[in-house]
Amino acid sequence: VEATYTDLTTGQPATSHIEAALKSKKHVVTTNKGPLALHYASLIKLAASKKVQFRYEGTVMAGTPMISFGTTNLAGCDISEIRGIFNGTTNYILTRMGEGMSYADALAKAQELGYAEADPTGDVEGFDTMGKVMILANIFMDGKLKKEEITRQGITGITPEDIQRAEAEGKRWKLIGRLRREGRRVTGSVAPEALPLSNPLSSVGNAVNAAQFATDLLGEVTVVGAGAGRKETGFAVLSDLLDIHRAIG
Amino acid sequence: VEATYTDLTTGQPATSHIEAALKSKKHVVTTNKGPLALHYASLIKLAASKKVQFRYEGTVMAGTPMISFGTTNLAGCDISEIRGIFNGTTNYILTRMGEGMSYADALAKAQELGYAEADPTGDVEGFDTMGKVMILANIFMDGKLKKEEITRQGITGITPEDIQRAEAEGKRWKLIGRLRREGRRVTGSVAPEALPLSNPLSSVGNAVNAAQFATDLLGEVTVVGAGAGRKETGFAVLSDLLDIHRAIG
Repeated sequence: VEATYTDLTTGQPATSHIEAALKSKKHVVTTNKGPLALHYASLIKLAASKKVQFRYEGTVMAGTPMISFGTTNLAGCDISEIRGIFNGTTNYILTRMGEGMSYADALAKAQELGYAEADPTGDVEGFDTMGKVMILANIFMDGKLKKEEITRQGITGITPEDIQRAEAEGKRWKLIGRLRREGRRVTGSVAPEALPLSNPLSSVGNAVNAAQFATDLLGEVTVVGAGAGRKETGFAVLSDLLDIHRAIG
Repeated sequence: VEATYTDLTTGQPATSHIEAALKSKKHVVTTNKGPLALHYASLIKLAASKKVQFRYEGTVMAGTPMISFGTTNLAGCDISEIRGIFNGTTNYILTRMGEGMSYADALAKAQELGYAEADPTGDVEGFDTMGKVMILANIFMDGKLKKEEITRQGITGITPEDIQRAEAEGKRWKLIGRLRREGRRVTGSVAPEALPLSNPLSSVGNAVNAAQFATDLLGEVTVVGAGAGRKETGFAVLSDLLDIHRAIG
């Protein structure tokens, strides 16, 4: 079980840990975003060559089982698009701003609650969500998406006027990570969107996360749940261990 | 694959079909609510004694994989409550009423679209939702809930004034099926509730369904998706067949 800190530039030291374990024929569970975003293809190949299991439910939406939902429960469906709220800090800030709080006050409150770090850049400029989009592209879209190809816009440009206009139109701002397959082409983006209240993502407030799958057989299916937390991420590890038990049992 | 019509009073002829198949050691998939609501315990026992698989994803929310989500993806969590929107017809009517349409007009529109039957009693008085609550109690709460013990209230008593008051308070009416475990006691209910817009169930509109699980390790997790449809129910059968393949593979 690999659970060290995330480095989205190198994926280390987690990637070396995982490689060493797989090479010695150990099943691996990780909650670390770095290896999944940067070295997915080689790790999957290594696990297959050693005939061992590799699981990573906790890398997106903590223990909320969105990865297994897409890979197992929706098996048999063609998934053409995945979009969602994958960063709790920015969703918390946007929720407070929707209630009239300023960006600066909402950020301070998020830091006070431990959601946002002292340097909030990774969250508010969309880098964290971009990492999740890369992971989901690796898992669900054959990895056909390069970091440079993902357009990225954070939430710092959203003004009180933007918020008020959205409220007046019955809409809510959300930072949406999105990946879409069109023919052989996969595109990815991170950008704030004003969603109508008829979209289930619009009612996902505070630090909660959500993922929406567009499929051929089921239409849109949405999973809403925790996106962070010790206990919640611990459950991701437990559910991966149970899944490995089922697979090899 | 058993896919005959539903009879929530006797569970027939589906239950006899399923029993005959299980007795001759065939794996069974059904989309039929009757056997699941009325004869779950004996069918599960029969399948176990014959060492064959019995699957029923399509009995609640069509192909939206809420049953496998609760039994497999959430395995390891303790589920204390399940609540949701399990009837598309009433949700369609409530959505239109929220936009200002009268109950009679909304019902007529639902009938025109093929959602509601000529005699809408089963939907609007909550009997269909009650059937789903019974099924979920059988699957998730050890069957400790009798039909007579489920309180049931439909949507016919909701007035335009109720709708307006909810809108003014930023709430939306939904027909909620609910089952809750408290110690050894399991309670069930079907009743309209005015939900705040902060609840993901509030933004589930038209004929869409949703299920919310209250858990110990993950807090609240919600699945939103189709609740009916030929293609969607066909996918439930496909996903059950894949699941059986995994289980015996």
